[in-house]
Amino acid sequence: MKTVSELRQDIISGDWVTIATGRAKRPHEFLKEKRPPFGQPKLGCPFEKLHSDALTVYSTDGERGKNNWWVEVIPNKYPAFGKGVCAIFHKIGPYQWTEGVGFHEVVITRDHERSLALMSEEEAELVVRAYQERYLALKDDECVEYISIFHNHGRLSGATLSHPHSQIIAIPVIPADVGRSLQGSAAYFHKNKTCIHCLILRYELKAKTRAIYENGHFVVLAPYASKTAFEMRIFPKRHNPHFETMLLQERLALANALRVTLRKLYKGLKNPDYNFFLHTAPTGDTREFHHYHWHFEILPKTAIWAGFEIGTGIEISTITPEAAADFLKKVKVR
Amino acid sequence: MKTVSELRQDIISGDWVTIATGRAKRPHEFLKEKRPPFGQPKLGCPFEKLHSDALTVYSTDGERGKNNWWVEVIPNKYPAFGKGVCAIFHKIGPYQWTEGVGFHEVVITRDHERSLALMSEEEAELVVRAYQERYLALKDDECVEYISIFHNHGRLSGATLSHPHSQIIAIPVIPADVGRSLQGSAAYFHKNKTCIHCLILRYELKAKTRAIYENGHFVVLAPYASKTAFEMRIFPKRHNPHFETMLLQERLALANALRVTLRKLYKGLKNPDYNFFLHTAPTGDTREFHHYHWHFEILPKTAIWAGFEIGTGIEISTITPEAAADFLKKVKVR
Repeated sequence: MKTVSELRQDIISGDWVTIATGRAKRPHEFLKEKRPPFGQPKLGCPFEKLHSDALTVYSTDGERGKNNWWVEVIPNKYPAFGKGVCAIFHKIGPYQWTEGVGFHEVVITRDHERSLALMSEEEAELVVRAYQERYLALKDDECVEYISIFHNHGRLSGATLSHPHSQIIAIPVIPADVGRSLQGSAAYFHKNKTCIHCLILRYELKAKTRAIYENGHFVVLAPYASKTAFEMRIFPKRHNPHFETMLLQERLALANALRVTLRKLYKGLKNPDYNFFLHTAPTGDTREFHHYHWHFEILPKTAIWAGFEIGTGIEISTITPEAAADFLKKVKVR
Repeated sequence: MKTVSELRQDIISGDWVTIATGRAKRPHEFLKEKRPPFGQPKLGCPFEKLHSDALTVYSTDGERGKNNWWVEVIPNKYPAFGKGVCAIFHKIGPYQWTEGVGFHEVVITRDHERSLALMSEEEAELVVRAYQERYLALKDDECVEYISIFHNHGRLSGATLSHPHSQIIAIPVIPADVGRSLQGSAAYFHKNKTCIHCLILRYELKAKTRAIYENGHFVVLAPYASKTAFEMRIFPKRHNPHFETMLLQERLALANALRVTLRKLYKGLKNPDYNFFLHTAPTGDTREFHHYHWHFEILPKTAIWAGFEIGTGIEISTITPEAAADFLKKVKVR
């Protein structure tokens, strides 16, 4: 069987790329032409129905599979990762590659228009619950080394379907970017015997200039070194490397923090496009990553990364995180 | 004097970001609204005239500042880096920042419509000559640690003005991304006593599956781990860490390779948007980077990096580099 993709490693930077051979396009399909319209009509939207192959279904009345379903998780029809043989690193000349083995799921909410910013807290909580339960369902698979949960909102974010949905991708390698953050966090812990993220939270809550929102369990910050204008990060107050082990009361508080944060963006900046994603410890030995601290990162798409940003990795942001935080703090949401 | 920007470091990843305080926008300027039209008219285009503050002017008849100028280099009117005090790393709580000291220049070609793909070889050579001569002019400044030369083509590339232009940014730090490639290259050299880039060139010229074009001094490849569909890299055949020390015959051959490459994209994919940029050794001690091998990277903008790509650093490409190379190789250009 052909795998849906190959993970190839850049031998100089160590970075991985995915070559989606299974859903590969032919060259002429890349021709510059009018793109299909975004903001597809409700009629004919593939996310409008409850799927027979749904892996998880939640209803607001607590029952499964009912007419009033709110969240369903389905396998991605065009997966970037799928079945195959993992943990074999093939050599080809100076290079190496491994099969793109893993899982690719889509978390769909029922309303065609209403994004997380506009959901009730109960509805948002079901989304977060789906994230956690699918994470728990996938993490023990022998091929899975890392799980990425992310959400693209709006055409500029890279979303192709406008119907609100998140994605969960489980992959057989630890991404180099994540690996570097783990190294940075480990190095700090080794030297200072404390979690750098916990230290930042304490510092920011005291400094106040970049703290945007806080509830019983979570803090929302504009990071000191923001990569985009109005970037926000949502951190649990409790030191914990692993997203999936958050407690029920934390899940409720995360749904609140995520909804409030996205609502501030929606109201303050008139529904900008954005990406958000989870950063959490790899799925392996839990003791190894004790120094890490899971969180969500929210990056509004207010500019395009151009040649300088792509060539150097240095983003240029045109508002200070302090001014962004001050602005977002003052946006009143219910 | 207020510096135009701050370089702030993410203490966990080590990455730098630029907070352009000098050209900062106010929050309401980020409101989602109709963007200004791209493809500005020739009349009123700020790049239509020879500037009185031009740093460099080249004419196709070899004379300076004449009516038939072809290339001019000017200081960017809205620089991301500028005058200030360099090499002081300020501590603020757990963080550090340094002033965004450096240079930001714009390389303009006279024709409002004609991009590098459509220039004559002589015209393209004047662009490459401007890159090299400005690099040489900036590299010995005591604040400059790294120089990035890049070009954004088309609205999706992040260009704001459609008039063809490149940019040169000299900065007071080595970008973390570049640092990692230097480390990878150094580690390989240390272990194998050979340049990894030279090895790849030899391998690819023999394998033929990813080699797209070759002239006397340069090779154009689709990289094995391509980050985007139709990504190409232009390598000098001669081992050399430093772009700016290329010889005259190499400069002529580079202009040829760059023009042919961009012309293949233009013709084969009907003028796609793209970014290209230089990767070269930092400006410091030349012996330290003997293992590196300068090159240009060309990334067509055929997809948007979304939540998965931003959250993991793993790009998903939907064509194999081999199929892309085969297609581009067959595009005949003069």
